[in-house]
Amino acid sequence: MGTMRWMENDAENDAARNSIDPEIEAYLDRTREARHASYLEFLRIPSISSLPEHAPDVRRAARWIAAELTRIGFEGVEVAETAGHPVVYADWLHAPGAPTVLVYCHYDVQPVDPIEAWETAPFDPFIRDGRVVGRGAADDKGQLHLHLQAAEALFATRGRLPLNVRILFEGEEEITSISLAPWLEANRERLAADAVIISDTGFFEGNLPALTVALRGNLYTQIDVTGSPVDLHSGGFGGGVENPANALAGIISQLKDRDGRVTIPGFYDEVIEPTRQERFEISCLPFDEDAFRAEIGVRALSPERGWTALECRAVRPTLDVNGLWGGFQGDGQKTIIPASAHAKVSCRLVPNQAPDRVFERFRDHVLRIAPPGVTVEVRNLGTALPVRTDTTHPIAQAALAALRAEFGREPLLIRAGGTIGVASMFVSQLGLPLVMLGFTNPDDNAHAPNEFMLLENYERGLRTICRLWDDLGAKSGDRAHDMATAGEAGTAARG
Amino acid sequence: MGTMRWMENDAENDAARNSIDPEIEAYLDRTREARHASYLEFLRIPSISSLPEHAPDVRRAARWIAAELTRIGFEGVEVAETAGHPVVYADWLHAPGAPTVLVYCHYDVQPVDPIEAWETAPFDPFIRDGRVVGRGAADDKGQLHLHLQAAEALFATRGRLPLNVRILFEGEEEITSISLAPWLEANRERLAADAVIISDTGFFEGNLPALTVALRGNLYTQIDVTGSPVDLHSGGFGGGVENPANALAGIISQLKDRDGRVTIPGFYDEVIEPTRQERFEISCLPFDEDAFRAEIGVRALSPERGWTALECRAVRPTLDVNGLWGGFQGDGQKTIIPASAHAKVSCRLVPNQAPDRVFERFRDHVLRIAPPGVTVEVRNLGTALPVRTDTTHPIAQAALAALRAEFGREPLLIRAGGTIGVASMFVSQLGLPLVMLGFTNPDDNAHAPNEFMLLENYERGLRTICRLWDDLGAKSGDRAHDMATAGEAGTAARG
Repeated sequence: MGTMRWMENDAENDAARNSIDPEIEAYLDRTREARHASYLEFLRIPSISSLPEHAPDVRRAARWIAAELTRIGFEGVEVAETAGHPVVYADWLHAPGAPTVLVYCHYDVQPVDPIEAWETAPFDPFIRDGRVVGRGAADDKGQLHLHLQAAEALFATRGRLPLNVRILFEGEEEITSISLAPWLEANRERLAADAVIISDTGFFEGNLPALTVALRGNLYTQIDVTGSPVDLHSGGFGGGVENPANALAGIISQLKDRDGRVTIPGFYDEVIEPTRQERFEISCLPFDEDAFRAEIGVRALSPERGWTALECRAVRPTLDVNGLWGGFQGDGQKTIIPASAHAKVSCRLVPNQAPDRVFERFRDHVLRIAPPGVTVEVRNLGTALPVRTDTTHPIAQAALAALRAEFGREPLLIRAGGTIGVASMFVSQLGLPLVMLGFTNPDDNAHAPNEFMLLENYERGLRTICRLWDDLGAKSGDRAHDMATAGEAGTAARG
Repeated sequence: MGTMRWMENDAENDAARNSIDPEIEAYLDRTREARHASYLEFLRIPSISSLPEHAPDVRRAARWIAAELTRIGFEGVEVAETAGHPVVYADWLHAPGAPTVLVYCHYDVQPVDPIEAWETAPFDPFIRDGRVVGRGAADDKGQLHLHLQAAEALFATRGRLPLNVRILFEGEEEITSISLAPWLEANRERLAADAVIISDTGFFEGNLPALTVALRGNLYTQIDVTGSPVDLHSGGFGGGVENPANALAGIISQLKDRDGRVTIPGFYDEVIEPTRQERFEISCLPFDEDAFRAEIGVRALSPERGWTALECRAVRPTLDVNGLWGGFQGDGQKTIIPASAHAKVSCRLVPNQAPDRVFERFRDHVLRIAPPGVTVEVRNLGTALPVRTDTTHPIAQAALAALRAEFGREPLLIRAGGTIGVASMFVSQLGLPLVMLGFTNPDDNAHAPNEFMLLENYERGLRTICRLWDDLGAKSGDRAHDMATAGEAGTAARG
């Protein structure tokens, strides 16, 4: 099974592993059952941030985490209000001389539609065949939970953490962190840290341990095409009036050409083309296109002409329809010309594309190609900058060492296709070095039905965090010095 | 108000009207309130044929009609089973020497979505400002009801009808009469008649009295585009895989060109182009494009290049998306590549296009232009042939005379853009001459929110039916002879 590649070689890898603190291991072994029960309990809270009817659930999840943080041993625990869903803050700052890390995860989840494609109820999670199945199992409640459990193991066995930790768990990551920027601005002082660890990424194809060193940015838009105020009978009016659904299809078809290249004028103007060296490095990654194609179950991969599928994810911007609707969607027939038709269209962006500038070009292009018989509106629903990590920074090096020690092999450096809006905020607003250390299996069905996390990834992820905290704490004198002089590990890719 | 044109000249028109039987008029005057209450009671039954959950309501509507037919004085009343919703049959055959007409209406209605665009509840009908508002008020329950009431007036005042009448009220017109063809076939003998009167059409723009002398045919299809079995994260997969929603938009955009011409190879091959004389006649119709545009509330009319908007409706085939959907449709953002995307696409057809042949060309074209990264399925959800009426046939002449007498002006002859699937069945299966005599105002919002029928159209429509029955019965000797020798008034337009 492709996702288990590092697990197949366990014997070999185990030999290469450094041993973890035996007291920690014994504690983790002893508390396994309670830990998993707690993980499932957390997943049962349907904290869907985008749906207003779930706002109380999102708040319930925040309070659940706050209670856990208090129980475990954190201080200053607060469910902090924002204009939207709350931020959960906590800290433990009693390791003088040791570095301070800010840990970021998010406790909100994606909606569950299409609900009919789930094999089991999304908020009735379970563990079977080594998988934790349910909405949020991977993205990102599973990763948040392993941070809680790593801290609990350290507190429980030693009564303290080896370094200073600040916790920032967000409830709006899936809705582009809309309230976080002002909250970060208002809380700059208590967020002072040497670096931020974001755990919202995952491993490479084949479930190979990896550090994510770049993220794409994002632009999310909505196109609304309106004809008449009401649906029209397609017999009485068909032929004489523009059909908004046909018009929308025409607009969408003029955003990309047959080669997969975006046709919006100026779209690629600020894109930094990868160097030959970077393209060579990507080609060296152990990526099996056929296995990848089979795993996602499509007939053929369709990369942009002139680029590999992996390059398309790592270094190329995209344009995708995320949803579209208009008119009759039921069984059978309804012979109407829909009053309106709508599409959600988003672009993943790469260095140095500026999302707001791309939006202007997108909007202008759509309005220019819209047919005269309809009214078209284009809205910007959210943006995020592309970001990169400096892998020579001590904290990035320590994270790589912890992965290497836990998994017994050299971690890969990957440029992820996804977006974490807060990553650019941490860099641009707080000036913090940034390490994206996440543990999910790449076939986790994040944002899709039947989301799951391999239990082994969760268990080893939490041990990796224990190792990293120990490592950073043990060499605290050196580390603190290194980090103070190394400058920023993360930079907003657009500078 | 545009819809009231013939009503504005009432004084003038009244002078031109022949008087109706005073006994009938007195009866109709006396029973006005009860008649309208009955109309509303009928509209309250949500007989939506396309939605399985409304099947009991469709049946309830059939039983309601059957009870009315019995009460009024019809015989042989039957709620006849089919493979789908029932057919209501009744007759009264005690006018020897007089002609026999088969009256067709339908009692099923369209779904109500988008429900949020209705100003009032669709199945809580009411009469205000001369309008009967509610789903089915016009299409077609209002017209069915006026037939019931015309017969009731005649039975109540005279104890008999002036001619022989067979009633065939259908419950599946809005789902292309799927069960009617076999039912007609099995009931040929008891449907023997001199002609069929279909009341499911309406007046010309400006609410000008008219006889519909042609209907377009229809082909209704569904296109299903599938990528992966589940939605994919647009960050992790965007760029490398074909997006089914983008692919669907691309397919739809290649079905019509910017001139509004359908680009499916062979689509126009069998179209009979109208003669110069026919185009001249269409141009003579009192049609105000600006008023029409303003009435439907679109920015601009968008007829096929080289044709007027009216010609596009009367003599040109069309291609319209009736609905489309796929992926995320909620508020805010969900960053996915949808697993699948879907569209309902239908074509209105003109003589001599054969729907099944057009479907084959449609399907072949769609499959040919589909991109390789997705799976595409094209389904035929239903077809109907285009039809025309011979206006020189005696029953067509009598219908025109009844309209002339009631409204005091020369009725127009119109080629309607819509489709009535049964029309072609009556012609091709039963060989019956066909007259499409309907009374709805053209701005009735049929198939759309806020459907309504002008009460005056309903009232005068029912008087027109009384006149027509009297006229056909009075001259029964002549008529029966004329009709026997005139051949078929209606012919399937494709021969």
